[in-house]
Amino acid sequence: MPAAKFEIRPVIRYAGNQQPEHARMAGKTIFKRIIDKEIPANIVYEDDLCLAFRDVAPQSPTHVLVIPRKEIPSLADATDDDSALLGHLLTTARKLAAQLGLTSGYRVVINCGPDGGQSVDHLHVHLLGGRPHGWPPG
Amino acid sequence: MPAAKFEIRPVIRYAGNQQPEHARMAGKTIFKRIIDKEIPANIVYEDDLCLAFRDVAPQSPTHVLVIPRKEIPSLADATDDDSALLGHLLTTARKLAAQLGLTSGYRVVINCGPDGGQSVDHLHVHLLGGRPHGWPPG
Repeated sequence: MPAAKFEIRPVIRYAGNQQPEHARMAGKTIFKRIIDKEIPANIVYEDDLCLAFRDVAPQSPTHVLVIPRKEIPSLADATDDDSALLGHLLTTARKLAAQLGLTSGYRVVINCGPDGGQSVDHLHVHLLGGRPHGWPPG
Repeated sequence: MPAAKFEIRPVIRYAGNQQPEHARMAGKTIFKRIIDKEIPANIVYEDDLCLAFRDVAPQSPTHVLVIPRKEIPSLADATDDDSALLGHLLTTARKLAAQLGLTSGYRVVINCGPDGGQSVDHLHVHLLGGRPHGWPPG
């Protein structure tokens, strides 16, 4: 698939759980703006609960983000009521991995807060595949 | 907490989705043997659906594994019916992170198959905290 046409690398690469001011235009995170179709993304899947698109700064041959439509800033902000939604995100990642041909396996990562290296304050699940992934995981 | 008294480092460090023969005694994975209390582990949480214990080869100051009691070999082997269980594993990781004082954030990782670096053929969620985690995640 072609790369996304917009440029959000500086935002995605930002280390920390606070975004640069330009990423918060209109009070929205860049992921919320993708959900709202205000900016394009290379979307590979969407349903009523979530949306998945290619990471613009891929760390592996396949690198997709799965995000909930619901605005949950991070995993730490999820509630018990979000548990089914979290399960749906992992189930979606599993199905996408199969559809994207990751037959040799893959790594799923959720970064939370500064120590996790979370870059955008909207919960997102990284799906990485297409190469062996080393240990430790960062 | 004290380190687990048993020694399973060679198994945990094994790269690949097949375990060495000695890890499959009685046809069980080492995690199933922990669930069945046949071997000890430094268990930090358990309920009807899952169990969490310290990784014997920690990659971060806090490194806990959350595993389902149900024997699901890997994320790729989960079914749609397991979605709620997957959500419960993430919710449990979130709660454990809070209880373990990971106020600066954390990283959650699920390895699937050889490219993921999965070391034991029983689905497990890594919760890592207590230091900043770099990018890429392995």
